Amino acid sequence: MSIRMIDVGDKAVTERTARAEGWIRLAPEVYQRVTQGQLPKGDGFLLAQVAGIQGAKRTADLLPLCHPLPIEGVKIDCQPLADSQTIRVEARVRTTGKTGVEMEALAAVSAALLCHYDLTKMFDATAEIGGIGLLEKTGGKSGHWQRPA
Amino acid sequence: MSIRMIDVGDKAVTERTARAEGWIRLAPEVYQRVTQGQLPKGDGFLLAQVAGIQGAKRTADLLPLCHPLPIEGVKIDCQPLADSQTIRVEARVRTTGKTGVEMEALAAVSAALLCHYDLTKMFDATAEIGGIGLLEKTGGKSGHWQRPA
Amino acid sequence: MSIRMIDVGDKAVTERTARAEGWIRLAPEVYQRVTQGQLPKGDGFLLAQVAGIQGAKRTADLLPLCHPLPIEGVKIDCQPLADSQTIRVEARVRTTGKTGVEMEALAAVSAALLCHYDLTKMFDATAEIGGIGLLEKTGGKSGHWQRPA
Amino acid sequence: MSIRMIDVGDKAVTERTARAEGWIRLAPEVYQRVTQGQLPKGDGFLLAQVAGIQGAKRTADLLPLCHPLPIEGVKIDCQPLADSQTIRVEARVRTTGKTGVEMEALAAVSAALLCHYDLTKMFDATAEIGGIGLLEKTGGKSGHWQRPA
Amino acid sequence: MSIRMIDVGDKAVTERTARAEGWIRLAPEVYQRVTQGQLPKGDGFLLAQVAGIQGAKRTADLLPLCHPLPIEGVKIDCQPLADSQTIRVEARVRTTGKTGVEMEALAAVSAALLCHYDLTKMFDATAEIGGIGLLEKTGGKSGHWQRPA
Amino acid sequence: MSIRMIDVGDKAVTERTARAEGWIRLAPEVYQRVTQGQLPKGDGFLLAQVAGIQGAKRTADLLPLCHPLPIEGVKIDCQPLADSQTIRVEARVRTTGKTGVEMEALAAVSAALLCHYDLTKMFDATAEIGGIGLLEKTGGKSGHWQRPA
Repeated sequence: MSIRMIDVGDKAVTERTARAEGWIRLAPEVYQRVTQGQLPKGDGFLLAQVAGIQGAKRTADLLPLCHPLPIEGVKIDCQPLADSQTIRVEARVRTTGKTGVEMEALAAVSAALLCHYDLTKMFDATAEIGGIGLLEKTGGKSGHWQRPA
Repeated sequence: MSIRMIDVGDKAVTERTARAEGWIRLAPEVYQRVTQGQLPKGDGFLLAQVAGIQGAKRTADLLPLCHPLPIEGVKIDCQPLADSQTIRVEARVRTTGKTGVEMEALAAVSAALLCHYDLTKMFDATAEIGGIGLLEKTGGKSGHWQRPA
Repeated sequence: MSIRMIDVGDKAVTERTARAEGWIRLAPEVYQRVTQGQLPKGDGFLLAQVAGIQGAKRTADLLPLCHPLPIEGVKIDCQPLADSQTIRVEARVRTTGKTGVEMEALAAVSAALLCHYDLTKMFDATAEIGGIGLLEKTGGKSGHWQRPA
Repeated sequence: MSIRMIDVGDKAVTERTARAEGWIRLAPEVYQRVTQGQLPKGDGFLLAQVAGIQGAKRTADLLPLCHPLPIEGVKIDCQPLADSQTIRVEARVRTTGKTGVEMEALAAVSAALLCHYDLTKMFDATAEIGGIGLLEKTGGKSGHWQRPA
Repeated sequence: MSIRMIDVGDKAVTERTARAEGWIRLAPEVYQRVTQGQLPKGDGFLLAQVAGIQGAKRTADLLPLCHPLPIEGVKIDCQPLADSQTIRVEARVRTTGKTGVEMEALAAVSAALLCHYDLTKMFDATAEIGGIGLLEKTGGKSGHWQRPA
Repeated sequence: MSIRMIDVGDKAVTERTARAEGWIRLAPEVYQRVTQGQLPKGDGFLLAQVAGIQGAKRTADLLPLCHPLPIEGVKIDCQPLADSQTIRVEARVRTTGKTGVEMEALAAVSAALLCHYDLTKMFDATAEIGGIGLLEKTGGKSGHWQRPA
């Protein structure tokens, strides 16, 4: 039995992007606090964006078989959805390299959602994180891929 | 507006534990590959355990306002659930300190699930990660807390 | 000739705090942008606070002979001073341990000031960082120390 | 309000350099110790050079919105200036990439100066760090820039 | 006296590979445990492979003058040699860049061997690590180099 | 099959030390360069000491199942042995905690030896690293242990 970091040396250098999403479901009173900027540790939207960017940059540290990549751009959006009392996080990551940035986008989403949990856990520890998945990616041999509706 | 890392200096040093969970839902043929140990990068259960332990150790690197903690134990379980075609991950983290290890347990679960995604994405990029939440924690002023059923 | 990480094993575990400061002098139009929250990368005060907290947590990574410390609290204040067109940064760091947190406080100030530079350099690359020094420390054998006026 | 890591994906890959400086002012007896190599933790000039190189390599870890860059060269000079009882640090950093290395050069200077403080603080805690700024940069769309005299 | 990170900016970007080896000599009963998969912390071959990959990725963190490199592939082999009661580790690392990956291959071997020690030290603390050296490298100005027999 | 980070939560907090050693064998002309301080990248003894201290601090980053520990002291000695044309490295590490610092001492030795290789490889790539082992440890339930002669 063996462990392999895939050898990407022979792959083409292309522009690559990935887009991923996820959400955290908050208790009503916590959802209000987040959206009204009333958290004692600081603004949830801003801190989650920072955590997401950091998550993207640290992907190869966190995941044993990921390649270190020269990330060229990360964008994190945090969207409050009143109907479901959730904060939806979307991350877009871009690089020019031999392997894709799917894991970077997913790690960014995860870190941003964990940050939201961290900022609100003093009010409610039952928040749930879910819906984490890849939405789209471009570049490489497989080209453009979009998650089927 | 300001950002605060909570000052835990005056809190008591107590034993603290946390337990968290989450799952990844895989396509049927991918679920089979994982459970039968037929992944080209290596055994998913083992690698996800390593990623989870690493995730717990790097929590304060990933999350801007988390305190560095001397983690004393991490246990990651990966359980294949045939009915739902999911791998359920559970993480238990333990420390002796002034603040809890909820974030470490949740970060461990997230890293383990991201690792499962990383190992299987070449077969199916539509896997979904969800159900991430805290199950239980002990220690500190609030004592024993369990997620309501 | 030799390099020594001071052995602090025989020192007493005490509560230790440190407070440090520094400033960045900005061009008038850049000072206005920062104080009015008009920077394209994001709010300078918030990001500098995050960078400062991160700087404190990474001190032992950055400085070859520093001991890793279980930081218990970090507080970063960014104060705009219109007279001097500077942003003054003050960091307070707290731990319970065998060695002080002076370097953590100074590293926090430095990281916060570098972050201000990073956010404004597209408008003016001539900003100057200065006045970085220790203001006060408590704990350990030497007890309370304050910078002479 | 949002946080943005600038997307540099469309920028040209060019050779890029940056040069930055700063100083630490020491008490006379400490200045003598440093310049005569009489510090108990080790030679200040050498350790500060190592800290500076390390600081350049860790810039993207320290600063939330910095891009990870494949640094190709770092040179740190530490120059004792007897008139002002200061050690002047100059850092030159070089890469080939889509974004500049100003922050790497400034982070290198800061880390080297913090290292000098760390090595001397047992003798005098009032040392001041200042004069940190960018001297010159080359590469990218803006080409050669030099700090006005 | 000064410290220099070699400036590789003017070197050509070429494909570069390196292969290194080393071994750990175990007590007979420990050798058996490793080869029969009877270690309480987990399978030694798998964990050492993960540690080796991690070691390669962290080389520039560990060694003061190493350049950060976009590693494209790492392969770690652990081979039990019954005659000598040793586990032989071989690492191959590949990149496309301006400097070689010898240090990455040697750091990978070292980390994998340290991992074997970590997993077995509870049974026997006298295990010895040795034979660490470079076997082969390709790329760059010096081209193909092989260790003389 | 599973991976376990040993739970040390119930162990006693005691003072713990470990001492480890290893050597690098150099070609005669390279041995001379090192001992006479004629290496282009900088003094080998000093840089190897820094690398060793860094290696001790990063042990839990490098080895998947190691616990993060508040290291209280690291001492690295590099001793040139003319008879064998080797540089012998010895590391002593100290902490107060629930688990020992054997791996920290061995990781320190390995990093210091890799640093020597890095500094000399331009002159001779055939240098061999060996003799890495634990010499002594104190603290914990097992108390004082010394490697049998």
